[in-house]
Amino acid sequence: MVIERVLIVDPIDGEYCGSVVIENGVIVDIIKNNSAPRYIVMPGFVDSHSHGKAGIDCMTASSLEFENWAEHVRTEGVTYLFPTTVSSSKKSLENVVANFSKANHPVLNFLHFEGPFINIERSGAQNKKYITSFSKDRLPEVKDKVKIITAAPEVEKFNELIKFAKKENIVISLGHSNGTFKDFKESFEKGINRVPHFPNALKRFHHRDVGPIGAVFLYKFYVELIVDNMHLSNEFLKLVYNILGPKRIMLVTDSIPAAGLEDGIYNLGEMNVKVKNGVARLENGSLAGSTLKYIEGVKNFRKATNCSLKELSMVTSYNSLKLLGIKGGRIRRGYPAKIVILDEDLNVKKTIV
Amino acid sequence: MVIERVLIVDPIDGEYCGSVVIENGVIVDIIKNNSAPRYIVMPGFVDSHSHGKAGIDCMTASSLEFENWAEHVRTEGVTYLFPTTVSSSKKSLENVVANFSKANHPVLNFLHFEGPFINIERSGAQNKKYITSFSKDRLPEVKDKVKIITAAPEVEKFNELIKFAKKENIVISLGHSNGTFKDFKESFEKGINRVPHFPNALKRFHHRDVGPIGAVFLYKFYVELIVDNMHLSNEFLKLVYNILGPKRIMLVTDSIPAAGLEDGIYNLGEMNVKVKNGVARLENGSLAGSTLKYIEGVKNFRKATNCSLKELSMVTSYNSLKLLGIKGGRIRRGYPAKIVILDEDLNVKKTIV
Repeated sequence: MVIERVLIVDPIDGEYCGSVVIENGVIVDIIKNNSAPRYIVMPGFVDSHSHGKAGIDCMTASSLEFENWAEHVRTEGVTYLFPTTVSSSKKSLENVVANFSKANHPVLNFLHFEGPFINIERSGAQNKKYITSFSKDRLPEVKDKVKIITAAPEVEKFNELIKFAKKENIVISLGHSNGTFKDFKESFEKGINRVPHFPNALKRFHHRDVGPIGAVFLYKFYVELIVDNMHLSNEFLKLVYNILGPKRIMLVTDSIPAAGLEDGIYNLGEMNVKVKNGVARLENGSLAGSTLKYIEGVKNFRKATNCSLKELSMVTSYNSLKLLGIKGGRIRRGYPAKIVILDEDLNVKKTIV
Repeated sequence: MVIERVLIVDPIDGEYCGSVVIENGVIVDIIKNNSAPRYIVMPGFVDSHSHGKAGIDCMTASSLEFENWAEHVRTEGVTYLFPTTVSSSKKSLENVVANFSKANHPVLNFLHFEGPFINIERSGAQNKKYITSFSKDRLPEVKDKVKIITAAPEVEKFNELIKFAKKENIVISLGHSNGTFKDFKESFEKGINRVPHFPNALKRFHHRDVGPIGAVFLYKFYVELIVDNMHLSNEFLKLVYNILGPKRIMLVTDSIPAAGLEDGIYNLGEMNVKVKNGVARLENGSLAGSTLKYIEGVKNFRKATNCSLKELSMVTSYNSLKLLGIKGGRIRRGYPAKIVILDEDLNVKKTIV
């Protein structure tokens, strides 16, 4: 298969015209040329934080539903989806791992466990009754199926979680936390450098106590951003882009099962979420994930920052995979042919997986 | 006069060894050489925000006291002092201008009016009863003696203040304000790019409303910083240094008359200030200026940021003068011989004015 006459966008090699040759799911050749490109070819998007879509809920999805979900987000350019749990019982998480393990779709690779080892005071849309200090016994067998655990550095036995994560080849993401600047700094020094839906569910910034937000800016953590024009202001986005740069940003949707459905009342981890004009909130008014389509986040980010396509390929794909140690996120010989083809307005024309 | 065998520090030419030749208050020559330097020579410091020192109060100082004050801060390396008023009556400001005009000391050039055109909700240590919307009639004749007016962009008739300031060759500093991101952005677009004692007496930063702090970071305002290890945390300092860079920072003391005296109760613009362990607060606990010595702020800044001496000469001298349109802040032929000589630990050995 040859994708002819396109603008190739690679996070390292940059932007140039050419054709991409694919065989058996691998990019086997790239032929540079000077023809006017018809489309843009970028590495397929990575959504490393998503709780559900179109009525499908990560917590209850059957293997078929996981596959349908994957197929659904593929239409938005996503080629790596990390279905994300909420704080729940061991039994419930066990079911998720079991059903996910049976699913078979090239967009599905790993799960993301958000909680239950988080701070009850920063629970957001997480069910408080399942939030707990770390214990291996609170988790099911992860069976190489879990790649990210979002946890608060101040939870009891966090150091044991670090050991566990290292052993299981899992990346810890520091969030839903009341942790201090020092907590985040010390975690960073232990190699933990990722923060979910920055800076939601974290302590606020102050000039006499810059807190975790200050730590993220000073030490240049990798941050997930929900770019739905609701969780963050455009000015904040620009600041993050200026301060951390495009190499430290990872777009996610944090979408909930109501994403893609009409406004109404929905369920999220045994809690009620009200969706109005596409904005999901708990009864107390807290934002509860998003109903964002990945590709809309991509467009919003580009509009807010005026970034280059090369930078866009970093924040939508390369950075996430690099952090997780997964080979991908590039349009280059030898890399997996997980590719999104877009028009000049960034509408998805085709996704190859 | 020749200052021989010194490390010359210039904000543009950088750091190099040589001797400085001075005649009639002007640097007439610089002779580069490779001898081991005995001392560091930097442009004399600029304190563009200081209410008093050693019992001398800008609001009540006689011309002799202004001269004593100038002589006092000269021992800390200051060669440009901008005595700073607080919000007060027209009559009172008139007296300040009159007494200041009679003072004669090379360290004294201009006054800084902090208020009275500020926001009563962000008054800090300013006396609320004198805070008012802009009217030319609330000011005395400024007679080329006032160079800075700190004002809030949201005060009534702010645009008339802008016109007035332009006519009188005065720089507006945006502070003691409840202004929004938009207020600061729009002021910036009108050419106002300075903020006093950043980010004290401003709205807080939030990721859905980044406010004036966000505007300062995005548009790169010039900021006054009080580096007394009290107004700002070291981490905040590092962030400002990273985000704005050394070309946008201006160290000030914001010192009050109690600076250089023992702990106790002092007066500031008709209000009581309690100084304990060198920290000045109003009865409600708000910080009320500082008791900082300029040279201590210089040492604190260097320690927190690990900046170069070249950068230090920017934040202590060059930036302030550049912003105010005053020729100075350089160790270079043709520039005024306002110079501080320091040892390697940044202790002031001599100040030439």
